[in-house]
Amino acid sequence: MTKGSKVATEIVNPQIDGTTGTDGDTDDIPLDPVFALHRGGKMEMNSTVPVRDAADLSLAYTPGVAEVCTAIAERPELVHDYTWKSQVVAVVTDGTAVLGLGDIGPEASLPVMEGKAILFKQFGGVDAVPIALACTDVDEIVETVVRLAPSFGGVNLEDISAPRCFEIERRLVERLDIPVFHDDQHGTAVVTLAALRNAAKLTGRELGSLRAVISGAGAAGVAIAKILVEAGIGDVAVTDRKGVVHGSRDDLNPVKRELASYTNRAGLTGSLEAAMAGADVFIGVSGGTVAEPAVASMARGSFVFAMANPTPEVHPEVAHRYAAVVATGRSDFPNQINNVLAFPGIFAGALQVRASAITEGMKLAAATALADVVADELSADRVIPSPFDTRVAPAVTAAVAAAARAEGVARR
Amino acid sequence: MTKGSKVATEIVNPQIDGTTGTDGDTDDIPLDPVFALHRGGKMEMNSTVPVRDAADLSLAYTPGVAEVCTAIAERPELVHDYTWKSQVVAVVTDGTAVLGLGDIGPEASLPVMEGKAILFKQFGGVDAVPIALACTDVDEIVETVVRLAPSFGGVNLEDISAPRCFEIERRLVERLDIPVFHDDQHGTAVVTLAALRNAAKLTGRELGSLRAVISGAGAAGVAIAKILVEAGIGDVAVTDRKGVVHGSRDDLNPVKRELASYTNRAGLTGSLEAAMAGADVFIGVSGGTVAEPAVASMARGSFVFAMANPTPEVHPEVAHRYAAVVATGRSDFPNQINNVLAFPGIFAGALQVRASAITEGMKLAAATALADVVADELSADRVIPSPFDTRVAPAVTAAVAAAARAEGVARR
Repeated sequence: MTKGSKVATEIVNPQIDGTTGTDGDTDDIPLDPVFALHRGGKMEMNSTVPVRDAADLSLAYTPGVAEVCTAIAERPELVHDYTWKSQVVAVVTDGTAVLGLGDIGPEASLPVMEGKAILFKQFGGVDAVPIALACTDVDEIVETVVRLAPSFGGVNLEDISAPRCFEIERRLVERLDIPVFHDDQHGTAVVTLAALRNAAKLTGRELGSLRAVISGAGAAGVAIAKILVEAGIGDVAVTDRKGVVHGSRDDLNPVKRELASYTNRAGLTGSLEAAMAGADVFIGVSGGTVAEPAVASMARGSFVFAMANPTPEVHPEVAHRYAAVVATGRSDFPNQINNVLAFPGIFAGALQVRASAITEGMKLAAATALADVVADELSADRVIPSPFDTRVAPAVTAAVAAAARAEGVARR
Repeated sequence: MTKGSKVATEIVNPQIDGTTGTDGDTDDIPLDPVFALHRGGKMEMNSTVPVRDAADLSLAYTPGVAEVCTAIAERPELVHDYTWKSQVVAVVTDGTAVLGLGDIGPEASLPVMEGKAILFKQFGGVDAVPIALACTDVDEIVETVVRLAPSFGGVNLEDISAPRCFEIERRLVERLDIPVFHDDQHGTAVVTLAALRNAAKLTGRELGSLRAVISGAGAAGVAIAKILVEAGIGDVAVTDRKGVVHGSRDDLNPVKRELASYTNRAGLTGSLEAAMAGADVFIGVSGGTVAEPAVASMARGSFVFAMANPTPEVHPEVAHRYAAVVATGRSDFPNQINNVLAFPGIFAGALQVRASAITEGMKLAAATALADVVADELSADRVIPSPFDTRVAPAVTAAVAAAARAEGVARR
C-alpha cells in the first residue's frame, strides 16, 4: 500500500526555520520541493453559487435561506438535496498511527489528512474535510464523531491505531446512519483482494484452492483476512510478532481472538516462516523482512504481495525468483497496491445512493469491479490498475452503488 | 442585522417533493429560485496542488508528506505554515437559534452555516467549514469544539441560543489558543458601534454625550451594550420583556446580572417606552414593535437603529419623522447593519497574524476601521458602508491585525 507502515524518509531540509517576524515578510521559504508544495496547505473551500450583489445574497443567505432551513426542519431528508452534506466526507483521525511515523498527534497528521482529502476530490469527485481530533480515548472519539455527523455524508477513519480502530469503527457504524469506513482496514483489503483475484485468474486458479499467509495482525492484516475469507479463499493464516494467530494462544486481544475463530483452518501454530512453507500467497502488511528461504519454501507459482513502504518485506527482485505474481506498495514497481484505487469510488458510490452504511457486499463488489478494469489486459506485471487509470473510479462507484441497492442500504 | 431575529418568510413552494426514485432520475426539481440555488449545497472543497501523476502524488501524499508530518511533530508551530489550518475557520452551531426560526436542529441549520462559510470566503478570503453539532449540552459542545480545534485556525460560533452561547464562548476562549468569536454577539456589536460612531460624527456629537436604549438582552443586545460601554457611550440601558435590566431585579440570570453591573448608570427601572423618553439612541435587536409615541419621546436628533428582520421594531418611515439617523437590518433601506461587514475581516486579520484570541481591542479597532471607510462620505443615509463596498474587508483586516499586535496576541 502506498501508505505503508515504514515510511522512514529522512528529513534533510536545513532551510526550514520557524523564526517568524512580526511583519509577515520574513517567513522562511524552504527550498525542498515537498515543503514548497505544502506551503499554506493543499486545499481550499469555494463557493459554488454567486455572491456578487444584494440579490445574490438574499437568495444564498438571508432572507431566502430561511425557506430552505424551514423545509429541512419539516422534512429532514431534504438536507441531502439542499446542502453539501451528501457530497462531503469527514476524514477523521486522532493522529495515533500516521503512516509509519506512529503517534505524532493531530496537528502533525494534518498534511496526510489534507492529502487524503484532495485524493477524494481528484479521484472520486467527493469533497472531504480533515478533522484531526485532540483526543485518543475511544469513548471520546466515538461521541465526538457522532456529534459531528449531521454535517457530513460519510466518515473516513484514518490512521487510528489498532486495536482501538476496530472498536471505534464498530461503534460508529452502530450509531450512525451514514457510511463509516476505516480506510487503513478496508481500502487496503479491497485493493488486495482485487489483485489476488486477478493473480488467480492469470494463473488459472480458484480462490478456494489458495492458502494465504498474512504477516501483520493490525488494521490492514485483520481486514484483509476478513475479506479473503468472505471472498472464499481456501485458507488464511495471520501472523503477529509471536507467530500464527490461533485459538490456543492466551495472549490474544478480543480482535485477534475473533480473527482466530474464522482463520487458520489448517490449525497452524508456528512462526511466519513455518506458515509460509507450501503456502500459495504471502501478504505483507507488517514491515520487517522475510528471509529468502521462506519465500523459496512457498508453493510453485505463488503470489508475493510485500506491501510495506518504503521497504517491502521481500524485495521484488528476490520475490520474482520464486513467485508467479509480485506486488508491492511502491509506485516504482509494477502492481502497486494503493488505497486510492478504492476509497474514492467506494465513497462516491455510497454517497450517490445515500447509503446508510458500507456493507461487506459493497466492499466485495468494489474489489471485483477494480479487478475487472484490467481483466482483459492481465499479465504478471498488471494484476491491478494504475492509480491514474481513469476507468477505475467510475467502475468502483457504479459497482458500489449497485451493491448498496442490492443490499438494501441505498436511500435513493 | 441581516440575520435578524424575526425571519418569518413564509414557505410557498408546492414544487418541493422529497419523493425520490431508486434510479436517481426522478428527483423533484423545485422551481423556486431559492431552492434551485441551494440544490446540492453552496460550497465545495478543492485541491490547490496538482495530483496529475505519480510524481505529484509522491510530493503531495506519500512518501513526501511524511517529511512535513515529521517536521510538524518536531516543531508544532509549523502546522500553521504547511497545512490549511491558519486559513480555515470552523463555523460551529447546535442549531438552537437559527435566524428567527429558533431551535430547528443541526441539519436544518446547515444552509445558514454554508451561507456563512461562503461569505467568509467571498468577503474575507477565509476558508470555512460548517460544523452543525448533534448536541446542545454546554459541556458537550465545549468539549467537542476543543477536540476539533487542532484542524482549525479559528472558531466562529453561530446561532447558539442565549444564555448558553455566553458560557460556551467564555469557556472556549479560556481553553483554546485560537480565535473564538460568537458572531451573533460581536459581529453585530462591531457593526452597530461603527454606525453609531458615524451617526455621532455626522451630527457633531461625542459618544460620551449619548444615552442609548437597547431593546433585547439576548446575544446581540448584551454584546452591543458591552462594546458601547467600552467605546465610552454616556449611558446605556438594556431592556428585556420585563423592562430595563437593573440590579434590583430578582429574576436576572448571571449574564443579565453582570450586564446590570456596568449599564444603566441612570438607574432606570421601568419599561422600554419609559426608558426611551429623552434617549438619544434606540437599538432594536428584539423583534416586536415600538409604538410611535415612544419614538417621538426621544431626544431631538436621535438615532434609531431598528434591526429586527424582516420587520424592524420601528418602520423607517415612522422613525424618520423624529430621528436624525435611521438604520435597519434590511438591504432595501439605507444603512443596513449587516454582520458581513465585520466577521470576514475580523477573522482574516486575526488569522493573518495568527492571533491567539480576538480581544476587545481588536473588536473596537474593527468598528473604527469600518466606520472610517465612509468617514468622508457621511450622510444620514450613509453612516455605514454597503456590504459590497470592496474597501471594507481590507480595512477591517488591517486594523484587526494591527490591534492584535498592539495587544500582544499576535504570533507572527
